[in-house]
Amino acid sequence: MGKEKTAAFIIIGNEILSGRTMDKNLNFLATNLNELGINLKECRVVRDEEDKIIEAVNTMRLTYDYVFTSGGIGPTHDDITAASVAKAFNTKLSINKEAENILIKHYQDKLNNERLKMAYIPEGASLLDNPVTSAPGFKIENVFVFAGVPKIMQAMFAAAKNHLVPGLKQTSISISAYVSEGDIAAYLSKLQEKYYEVEIGSYPFMREHKNATSIVFRSTNKELLNEAVEDYQKHLQQINSELIHDLSS
Amino acid sequence: MGKEKTAAFIIIGNEILSGRTMDKNLNFLATNLNELGINLKECRVVRDEEDKIIEAVNTMRLTYDYVFTSGGIGPTHDDITAASVAKAFNTKLSINKEAENILIKHYQDKLNNERLKMAYIPEGASLLDNPVTSAPGFKIENVFVFAGVPKIMQAMFAAAKNHLVPGLKQTSISISAYVSEGDIAAYLSKLQEKYYEVEIGSYPFMREHKNATSIVFRSTNKELLNEAVEDYQKHLQQINSELIHDLSS
Repeated sequence: MGKEKTAAFIIIGNEILSGRTMDKNLNFLATNLNELGINLKECRVVRDEEDKIIEAVNTMRLTYDYVFTSGGIGPTHDDITAASVAKAFNTKLSINKEAENILIKHYQDKLNNERLKMAYIPEGASLLDNPVTSAPGFKIENVFVFAGVPKIMQAMFAAAKNHLVPGLKQTSISISAYVSEGDIAAYLSKLQEKYYEVEIGSYPFMREHKNATSIVFRSTNKELLNEAVEDYQKHLQQINSELIHDLSS
Repeated sequence: MGKEKTAAFIIIGNEILSGRTMDKNLNFLATNLNELGINLKECRVVRDEEDKIIEAVNTMRLTYDYVFTSGGIGPTHDDITAASVAKAFNTKLSINKEAENILIKHYQDKLNNERLKMAYIPEGASLLDNPVTSAPGFKIENVFVFAGVPKIMQAMFAAAKNHLVPGLKQTSISISAYVSEGDIAAYLSKLQEKYYEVEIGSYPFMREHKNATSIVFRSTNKELLNEAVEDYQKHLQQINSELIHDLSS
């Protein structure tokens, strides 16, 4: 606790970049890391190509505290994540006995060479449990390798949580009102200058054909956060702007 | 026509990386570029930070035919995309007369300094029409700068289309069946070797508690594509695997 913790996410898969599949893992990971006080700083979506995966893994693992990947750890020819991560770490991809035993138990007489490929893990990695379809993810140094199917990815994240050191948790307060962001932009600029330790984000939207804006205040300093929020609420009263409490839009 | 066209997408916004907002623009862009025969090769999600935006823009505009960005072009203090793109191109951010006139017409007596900020465009850029909220996006060389709100982003993409040269269109055929991907992985490996000009992707899913797999064939060569698909369909018959026609899962 106490120090800022940072993370990056690498989504591996041609299907996301062709539009065939809509990614659901980024939002899940972002939300869950946020709750742990770990700041997701960057995300990259790359194709199932070895050099792209290696480049992304090696750039990010040296920059951030944690790196997560999703996709490409199944039994088919297009699943090349484990082999690429091994190359990124300059280590061997070899059969992991623990993973092999998991697959033997799960697949029994259906365990063929292709399924066994899922037991080939970079040397030095430790496994991440997969209660959904058994074939494990893994962790090597600060890199966590997950499956792409959201249900399995989420189960592997639950296993990964034991390895994560939480950071300073940011508190976040969102205030939505019927106000056009252009009408409060000058005020917000000054508010941001005054409360430079509070991150103030402005997100416009339409509601009942009226302009509306959500202002999101985020900070590790709750006291300052509350001060900034109170200041903004007073401003909304002064300009007679109606608050929106139910934010289901 | 004829040549491969490539693209990259930069999503700019803290709200995506904190989990507050779920991105919907990547899937839209991927699908629409795919229809134009433009291959989306990479996507990056970065924070509202000048150096991150500049780095992403400058890395990608030299690597790909087209670069698209979404987010950060509104009137508030956290909207820094236009200024960052100007710096990336080493050009000045100055008031664009055409954009100013659009804003004057739209906002009339509500045009304040903050809204006028949306008329500050990198020199040398041309505007992209925004029929939703008027403030335009822009194009500078091969970089297209869009708003983050999906409805506006989509309108700006429609305007950008006039500037895009379509590439060789890939045809895509997807075959789904009740088959576990581990059972066809060896066959698929050989099929991929035989049809190396066809990209073959394997995507497992569950349906009615049974294992199922979608195989996606993609190629610019329709004849080879059809051959590969027929080969696979024969294989499914040989192993008595039931096809799934309604893919609403």
